[in-house]
Amino acid sequence: MSRPMTYAMIGGGTDAFIGEVHRRAIALDNTAVLVAGALSSTPERSIQSAKQLGLCHDRSYGTYQELFEREQARQDRVDFVVIVTPNDTHFPIAKAALEYGFHVVMDKPSTHTSEQSQELSELAIKQNLLCCVTYNYTGYPMVRQARAMVRDGSLGTIRKLIIEYHQGWLATDLESSGQKQAAWRVDPSRAGLGGALGDIGTHAENLGSFITGLEVDSVYAELNAFVPGRQLDDDASVLLKYKHGAHGVITASQVCIGRGNGLSIRVYGDQAAIHWNQESPDELLYTQIDANTMTYTRGGPGLSSDAQISTRIPQGHPEGYLEAFANIYRGVVEAIRTKRDGTPETALSQLIPTIKDGAQGVQFVERCVESASKGCSIKF
Amino acid sequence: MSRPMTYAMIGGGTDAFIGEVHRRAIALDNTAVLVAGALSSTPERSIQSAKQLGLCHDRSYGTYQELFEREQARQDRVDFVVIVTPNDTHFPIAKAALEYGFHVVMDKPSTHTSEQSQELSELAIKQNLLCCVTYNYTGYPMVRQARAMVRDGSLGTIRKLIIEYHQGWLATDLESSGQKQAAWRVDPSRAGLGGALGDIGTHAENLGSFITGLEVDSVYAELNAFVPGRQLDDDASVLLKYKHGAHGVITASQVCIGRGNGLSIRVYGDQAAIHWNQESPDELLYTQIDANTMTYTRGGPGLSSDAQISTRIPQGHPEGYLEAFANIYRGVVEAIRTKRDGTPETALSQLIPTIKDGAQGVQFVERCVESASKGCSIKF
Amino acid sequence: MSRPMTYAMIGGGTDAFIGEVHRRAIALDNTAVLVAGALSSTPERSIQSAKQLGLCHDRSYGTYQELFEREQARQDRVDFVVIVTPNDTHFPIAKAALEYGFHVVMDKPSTHTSEQSQELSELAIKQNLLCCVTYNYTGYPMVRQARAMVRDGSLGTIRKLIIEYHQGWLATDLESSGQKQAAWRVDPSRAGLGGALGDIGTHAENLGSFITGLEVDSVYAELNAFVPGRQLDDDASVLLKYKHGAHGVITASQVCIGRGNGLSIRVYGDQAAIHWNQESPDELLYTQIDANTMTYTRGGPGLSSDAQISTRIPQGHPEGYLEAFANIYRGVVEAIRTKRDGTPETALSQLIPTIKDGAQGVQFVERCVESASKGCSIKF
Amino acid sequence: MSRPMTYAMIGGGTDAFIGEVHRRAIALDNTAVLVAGALSSTPERSIQSAKQLGLCHDRSYGTYQELFEREQARQDRVDFVVIVTPNDTHFPIAKAALEYGFHVVMDKPSTHTSEQSQELSELAIKQNLLCCVTYNYTGYPMVRQARAMVRDGSLGTIRKLIIEYHQGWLATDLESSGQKQAAWRVDPSRAGLGGALGDIGTHAENLGSFITGLEVDSVYAELNAFVPGRQLDDDASVLLKYKHGAHGVITASQVCIGRGNGLSIRVYGDQAAIHWNQESPDELLYTQIDANTMTYTRGGPGLSSDAQISTRIPQGHPEGYLEAFANIYRGVVEAIRTKRDGTPETALSQLIPTIKDGAQGVQFVERCVESASKGCSIKF
Repeated sequence: MSRPMTYAMIGGGTDAFIGEVHRRAIALDNTAVLVAGALSSTPERSIQSAKQLGLCHDRSYGTYQELFEREQARQDRVDFVVIVTPNDTHFPIAKAALEYGFHVVMDKPSTHTSEQSQELSELAIKQNLLCCVTYNYTGYPMVRQARAMVRDGSLGTIRKLIIEYHQGWLATDLESSGQKQAAWRVDPSRAGLGGALGDIGTHAENLGSFITGLEVDSVYAELNAFVPGRQLDDDASVLLKYKHGAHGVITASQVCIGRGNGLSIRVYGDQAAIHWNQESPDELLYTQIDANTMTYTRGGPGLSSDAQISTRIPQGHPEGYLEAFANIYRGVVEAIRTKRDGTPETALSQLIPTIKDGAQGVQFVERCVESASKGCSIKF
Repeated sequence: MSRPMTYAMIGGGTDAFIGEVHRRAIALDNTAVLVAGALSSTPERSIQSAKQLGLCHDRSYGTYQELFEREQARQDRVDFVVIVTPNDTHFPIAKAALEYGFHVVMDKPSTHTSEQSQELSELAIKQNLLCCVTYNYTGYPMVRQARAMVRDGSLGTIRKLIIEYHQGWLATDLESSGQKQAAWRVDPSRAGLGGALGDIGTHAENLGSFITGLEVDSVYAELNAFVPGRQLDDDASVLLKYKHGAHGVITASQVCIGRGNGLSIRVYGDQAAIHWNQESPDELLYTQIDANTMTYTRGGPGLSSDAQISTRIPQGHPEGYLEAFANIYRGVVEAIRTKRDGTPETALSQLIPTIKDGAQGVQFVERCVESASKGCSIKF
Repeated sequence: MSRPMTYAMIGGGTDAFIGEVHRRAIALDNTAVLVAGALSSTPERSIQSAKQLGLCHDRSYGTYQELFEREQARQDRVDFVVIVTPNDTHFPIAKAALEYGFHVVMDKPSTHTSEQSQELSELAIKQNLLCCVTYNYTGYPMVRQARAMVRDGSLGTIRKLIIEYHQGWLATDLESSGQKQAAWRVDPSRAGLGGALGDIGTHAENLGSFITGLEVDSVYAELNAFVPGRQLDDDASVLLKYKHGAHGVITASQVCIGRGNGLSIRVYGDQAAIHWNQESPDELLYTQIDANTMTYTRGGPGLSSDAQISTRIPQGHPEGYLEAFANIYRGVVEAIRTKRDGTPETALSQLIPTIKDGAQGVQFVERCVESASKGCSIKF
Repeated sequence: MSRPMTYAMIGGGTDAFIGEVHRRAIALDNTAVLVAGALSSTPERSIQSAKQLGLCHDRSYGTYQELFEREQARQDRVDFVVIVTPNDTHFPIAKAALEYGFHVVMDKPSTHTSEQSQELSELAIKQNLLCCVTYNYTGYPMVRQARAMVRDGSLGTIRKLIIEYHQGWLATDLESSGQKQAAWRVDPSRAGLGGALGDIGTHAENLGSFITGLEVDSVYAELNAFVPGRQLDDDASVLLKYKHGAHGVITASQVCIGRGNGLSIRVYGDQAAIHWNQESPDELLYTQIDANTMTYTRGGPGLSSDAQISTRIPQGHPEGYLEAFANIYRGVVEAIRTKRDGTPETALSQLIPTIKDGAQGVQFVERCVESASKGCSIKF
């Protein structure tokens, strides 16, 4: 076990939701230690949050610019920065971070436009820096098992993907109550072009790509805003054509009363099929043609190396969302170490989602919105 | 308990699949007794099947024409005829039956064109005869519970339907092996315009209409034939707009390896949601907004009258496909009795699917095929 | 397909529950036709029920003695009799039936004492007649699959059985409300020594024996009557030792609120394990050591011949309780035909439960009651 | 958020399993920081492990005695010690820790004899120190919900508990392969009197007590050692009588092929029932008499305060074993703070399992072993 790295957080003050998730995920494996931050949108609140999180006074920054400038100057500068600010600010912050020479981990959706993500992607390459986008569901061991099975040919040629992400929490006009999580998601200036499509549809799209490696060729989308007054979609249905002949169906909705985080994927090949469901993440169903369905389990028999290295505790003791998230960060530190030391890429480092995936996700939203407004299929 | 009625069967010889299902379903409740038949496509095989089924010699007919003519002349003529021939022969047989004055029960899809179904519908009305199309899944008690709950407002205004019918048995070129069930389904001359779309997609469409009462306004469909050489679709994805603002997604596929008869429906209203799955038919999930999911069970507490009268045995003792099918026939004999005796319609008789539903199903296929070929949305 | 047999029913008048179940199960496969009956405890009600069921006047009998006497004298006498009277009358009726030369099918528990069942067993052998006891759960295809797998060594040496039968309908003092099904079950004069133990515990014991072929060596039982005023147990826990070293746990209870008919069995061998649950009867879980769990399904791949011949419709179209019950009757008529024609036993005829199983069930109740009253383990 | 506490670990070197679990669980919420350790059975390996875990050289101790002595002398002495050594060494270490004035957290089973646990319990009281035993399953939010519902009367009077803990990993002679986790568990000198009974049966017993508050009055146990050569049980079945009339059944087995950590509990009251299963820990089924089953979910509607404060992320994003374990530690630090500062007990601090529970677990093992050897019921 190597010494943990250090990181700084931009956003994620003590009243935010997702910052806390990132911190827990990093702490779980003692992957890295939070030592610096610019945690809120005002210097005062930033400093206060930093105090609550036990940061040293001299690394509690009022703004991200200040953080980058002063950390860059330190001998013990942080190993990477985590950007968990509202969506609309991702781009300038990530761009600055890369320019200052910091490895970046950022929430998805990466940016408001796919051009911005493309720009970040090129900048990261130029700077030889990591720019990871936390498509966290790719961290689940059984998702990685699914990927390994598709990639090793266990399903044959892929024909059809059916991917769902169904939530119910926005079935009413929650934003009017002042609920913070709801408010920014339904506001185009902060959320971007997509509502449910951007918030969860992009996870669905990414999950399909991560597992199968297929590239989207065109989409046909219908977007609905069922709750009166909403400007962005709260429900999206998308038919996808992938290159080389596979087809897909994505339904992403936030008005599905009774559903928590119903993200699931079914992949049908010409030899076998798999089924995974985020709410029972430790299981993966696999059926070969003319055979009985087998249930693969995290920690159980017959798993690929990628699934095995992405788990901590034995079969039957559930791991969940935070553990999956933590797997991303284990890959992040290995990727940074690889870049820093010039060592070969590791299995975990190769599994992490990057700004390239982020760009694809934003493009997916853009194409779907175009399709829905024109009423026709749109090419990628 | 009244005396059972009598019926004749057209098609359904001893080597057919669905004829046997109809006979069992009718026998289960002692609803009616098979007394006459024209059971096969040749007189010889018809007579032989009749013998095997124990029909009297003088009511074992070689052709349907003969059956109608001679039964019509009898004092003890059959109460109704059941048509379970291949799809392409439904129309002329049903038309003749109605013209001869017989109540008709026929398999779905009713006819090859929606005009034919429309013609049968008008003929049935003119003759004051029943023309039932066996959309058998509407016979499940918990489907009827779902319908009752939607209709009594328990879900509020309906927003979204997600309906699946996924099978795996045609994932390979089974028709080349000479498998009879596969062969006619992939043959346009016998199956009509739709493959999976017609065979199982119509069940999905019908289930949505039966439960919600919503009328389809337009469809956008993508049809695939994944198995090389197939002329008809073996996989269909359809986005639906219903009148008054609800939306739907239907996926119907016969290449989903590992799936038996994965017919399920989720209906999301603005107040609550339901979920039903044909492979666990005795359960219905119901979730009101901001409440825990409740599992309604056949024979259990809190059921509507329609669900209660559609069941035979207590909660926890499973009923299945044949029992659901039998519920259609219980409605059929009650509907015939109603017409015969001029008595009021009964609850069961009002639940049976008719040729009007059949026409809608055929129209659904026609519009989807048109949409898929034109690449745009098609109005109903 | 042979001509259906004929049968008479003793008990099972139109207001009874289980008689109707038997009639439906027989009708489902057109196994036999009801042509005679002594359907109620008084001649008047017997005749009235017979009329409602459409029996001919001259075969509507007032008493079982009359039925046996007059049917015996007919050329077209019934092929078998079905006894569905209250438990306390099974013995004299079955004895008379066998003495008059009729094959017998009777409900379980067969008799009030194991000596009576033993006597019936010997009488049946002497008369060369069938005496079947309807342990109906043995008719489920996947139970038969489980049996085939245990018998062919797929589990290795059996170590442990865990069998549950949990119901909730007697969690309150339902008998006081006059509910007929509850009333006789809690009355020692009608139900015998066992309450839940006799009513459902015997099904659990039988299921274990049917699947594994193991013989009980001793039992330790605790019996509770949780509902105040009950004389018989409404909850039983039994630890079993089987011959050759296997152990078992049976819990049978009728106070498990929320449970319908929660009959399940888990069998653990030294090579593999199986799990079956009556409320999802079409599935059987099978796990070999160090392998993933496989789900066998009725109609699906890899099934034994016994499972295949016990099913009617394809995988994914559920069969249930009545279909399982009907499988017993298919075996009954094949067994009778075998005896009548001297033909070899068939697969289905060999699977039916007999009065020997009935005797074992009654003995199980007797030993458990003795164990519970003495507070020690009791030998078989 | 307060400053994290500090802790020392005894045992749990880098090649151990459970020490890592404790460290992760503590890190997840930033509850405390590991600053000292005597991590292995030899000084050399202790120091090496300490180095790998990043401990300062001067707090890397060779033995627990040294740790206690030198930490006691420091101004910044650790707030508590975590004992994760093999079972047979728990007692002397915990005793020393308490004598030196350290709060203690220790693995279960607490000690080899109930007298030892009793002694620790009295010592802890005398010293006014916390002595927590990590019955970690009590940390699951939905277990705490179950407890709250039983305690607030939602189930009425408790009648029956059915508790299972089924594993399959010791179905073969794994210990002969040198597998370390297996080896100590089957060795009486290290594991104590109970095999499966002590390892997992005690979790089952504790779970029942935690949820219902019922005290065991007597037990009847059957213990098996199915794998040849084993001295301790690998399979246990126990019938329990609780004070005030409730009954229980515990089955604990490590030869259940196919089972991972199948810990489940069903509690039946006279008004309602609950069902919880560790492998789907975010759900709790609740059924009131004559009502439909409701599924409570972690993060979902209608939860008790105890369940709400034991969770981190929203409904539908799974939490698991480590999160439950971490909830114990959140209670530990609150309990220590309470003792230190004289502040009132908090909700979380009141939920933690203590050495009193540990004593009860050891007593449970002792009584069951006595019952099994004598073949009769044994009083508590």
